[in-house]
Amino acid sequence: MENYAKIAATSKSRVVIIGGGFAGIELAKSLREADVQVVLIDKENYHTFQPLLYQVATAGVEADSIIHPFRKIFKHQQNFYFRLAEVVHVDTENRFVETSIGLIKYDYLVIATGATTNFFGNKQMEKNAISIKSLDDALELRNTILYNFEKALQLNDKEQLNSLMDYVIVGGGPTGVEVAGALCELRNHVFPKDYKELDFREMDIYLIQSGPQLLKGMSDEAGQKAQEYLERFGVKVWLNRRVKTYDGYTVTLDTGETLVTRTLIWAAGVTGAPVHGIRPDSVLKGNQLQVDVYNRVAGYENVFAIGDIAAMITEEYPLGLPMLAQPALQQGELLGQNLKRLMAGKPMQPFEYNDKGSMATVGRNRAVADLKLFKKEIKTQGFIAWLIWMFIHLISVVGFRNRLVVLVNWGWNYFTYDTGNRLIMGKKHVNVPVKETITEKTME
Amino acid sequence: MENYAKIAATSKSRVVIIGGGFAGIELAKSLREADVQVVLIDKENYHTFQPLLYQVATAGVEADSIIHPFRKIFKHQQNFYFRLAEVVHVDTENRFVETSIGLIKYDYLVIATGATTNFFGNKQMEKNAISIKSLDDALELRNTILYNFEKALQLNDKEQLNSLMDYVIVGGGPTGVEVAGALCELRNHVFPKDYKELDFREMDIYLIQSGPQLLKGMSDEAGQKAQEYLERFGVKVWLNRRVKTYDGYTVTLDTGETLVTRTLIWAAGVTGAPVHGIRPDSVLKGNQLQVDVYNRVAGYENVFAIGDIAAMITEEYPLGLPMLAQPALQQGELLGQNLKRLMAGKPMQPFEYNDKGSMATVGRNRAVADLKLFKKEIKTQGFIAWLIWMFIHLISVVGFRNRLVVLVNWGWNYFTYDTGNRLIMGKKHVNVPVKETITEKTME
Repeated sequence: MENYAKIAATSKSRVVIIGGGFAGIELAKSLREADVQVVLIDKENYHTFQPLLYQVATAGVEADSIIHPFRKIFKHQQNFYFRLAEVVHVDTENRFVETSIGLIKYDYLVIATGATTNFFGNKQMEKNAISIKSLDDALELRNTILYNFEKALQLNDKEQLNSLMDYVIVGGGPTGVEVAGALCELRNHVFPKDYKELDFREMDIYLIQSGPQLLKGMSDEAGQKAQEYLERFGVKVWLNRRVKTYDGYTVTLDTGETLVTRTLIWAAGVTGAPVHGIRPDSVLKGNQLQVDVYNRVAGYENVFAIGDIAAMITEEYPLGLPMLAQPALQQGELLGQNLKRLMAGKPMQPFEYNDKGSMATVGRNRAVADLKLFKKEIKTQGFIAWLIWMFIHLISVVGFRNRLVVLVNWGWNYFTYDTGNRLIMGKKHVNVPVKETITEKTME
Repeated sequence: MENYAKIAATSKSRVVIIGGGFAGIELAKSLREADVQVVLIDKENYHTFQPLLYQVATAGVEADSIIHPFRKIFKHQQNFYFRLAEVVHVDTENRFVETSIGLIKYDYLVIATGATTNFFGNKQMEKNAISIKSLDDALELRNTILYNFEKALQLNDKEQLNSLMDYVIVGGGPTGVEVAGALCELRNHVFPKDYKELDFREMDIYLIQSGPQLLKGMSDEAGQKAQEYLERFGVKVWLNRRVKTYDGYTVTLDTGETLVTRTLIWAAGVTGAPVHGIRPDSVLKGNQLQVDVYNRVAGYENVFAIGDIAAMITEEYPLGLPMLAQPALQQGELLGQNLKRLMAGKPMQPFEYNDKGSMATVGRNRAVADLKLFKKEIKTQGFIAWLIWMFIHLISVVGFRNRLVVLVNWGWNYFTYDTGNRLIMGKKHVNVPVKETITEKTME
């Protein structure tokens, strides 16, 4: 006897969605009126607004205000069922998903599992670095940063002190740029008041980028301005360098240069997070699933993939679409419509990416944006870009209450130069134990 | 060579405070202008506003908004030093505190370690029950409640279902009453929308009280009204009963009655949390430290205790003062003044408790209050008491920003019947593993 998960019996078609990121929840919403049973599986009971994770990591907003329980998002959607479960594998022949709570049958399967940090096979880096891909990561980074300073208070040795106070961020994409900027703001405005006993001129923030420019994928103006802003804030931007090794203390670059830090933030790349059981031919390099213009996974009739996990390769996008919120949201929305068409025997509509541009914030009053409005490209940097960034992110946070809390936080931070939540609560990342160097001289 | 913690050398007297609860932070504040070095030691880097812990446990407010980092509270106080450390023991002869970061010398030692949950030696209870004494506890309870329902969705067996959906709260003091009321509100207004597949008429909430009345220590009117309100909300209030055993599944009372629940909330008592190294003669029953009217620990010249850990036995209070926020705040404030007097060679002033009364909230629009204003007793119950409770707790939360966030939360909850943060994030308490009873019948 097979062990089935309990879900209300239905004569309707069942759409099973794995993963409640942007793509997954947009699809579920888009099936609101459809005559189907929608089952969303996720290993957390909440949706994470990933673009603001870096602000949680740098104590800018509360964790709670950028996450939203699925059951709350969908409380008015009658055909929606949520199951808190981990997926073990999918059996596409017998059309079920094996999960930690039992088997779940499907008529249509949608994989929306997103992406995970790519350490490019570097096990040492995976062990010693911190990434910012989940809420857990972000909270761990926050705890680690704050705990480092508490530890630093007890040290005299200059190198040991630097190992705790310096930060190395690897990867000059939006996440790397945003974290570097936020850390710099903390150093310039917040930490010196909290830790009066420490000299924050000793705190160095390095941003390491493998290519010749920051924000690859955005315009040259954006990359250059981002670098200019960061350097003005005090970030040491090191271009054309790769990290070779990091033992939890010493960072060695391919140029032979070395840096000392106990906290290396890895924002150098992501890779798809596919599920087991999909035919290997459809899994491309980068672990993404090859989909056609209807987001159907190659080789299947009723298995789809949307968002970061999907590689939709077209003439316009020979490398696939960028791994951003916009393609995920648009694919989720369209797939909902297409599933309805499919069930009604109508032809599906091909996906066309409506590129609205991209942006990154660097810090107080400074952001860079390459916008596309009415097919016109608008490049803007500085205060206006920052206001646009704030506005777009604020309205995108799910839930009116969350928006209000984020707004209160941002307003508060802006006017007081004082971020809210410098709490050490939960796990922290401790690399090499700190060598205690307290000697009689420093006795009380 | 002794291993000393590093703290700026000073020729001033050093006051070391162990514990940053109400008493500890009030004392540190009161020493703002004093010519001393104030060192606060705590094992967390934040102050917890304990009266609202139950709201964190029942997803009413965010964890972040009831806690406040010490460094932030005292960022403008120049003579204040915080150390994140655990206390191992105190050596009152050589006048130092041994901590996890090294030895810390003191001229005046103030123990403000508060109280901890009292399981009255019942190891089984300690292992299987959940208490609500720290932020960790509160978050664990929140996660557990929400996870129980996710599990319950998979069950058919009625007893198993009840074990996950029913709650037993032991202890009819303010915490027990407040948790019972809050859980009932969730059952009546929130959970049914989140878990449409569950029948919440099956969710029973029991409040077990050993004595004949709730809210011992408050007036009869308060106790009776609280019971009336709770019963109207749907709580089963069981008086004159004690819990004998709880194996994580079955609760057995001294009357022979049994209840089934996987979640027993223990709010039946607290006990002092003293530090090692204090002379045994000064540790009273209940683990409190015997202090004189100056909060000086019996047998010492320069060791003090304030707040819940202090037993100040007077003619008016032969059992010591109630373990509430008010005595803690008042003792902290006065001790600051007294230490200044002591150092100036002036006589200290004896402590006199200004009893402002006490209150408890039962749920939406309902609270009970025994107030003392201008030496007049005012007893009030219902909506007015609830407004007073809200107002007093709101203005008492540390930090303007936190107050704003709590206000947003409360306003939101009140008008939408929808609490904010039903997130499962971090550890949960799992007693007996759920027996899976899925059979072929439920296969779909």
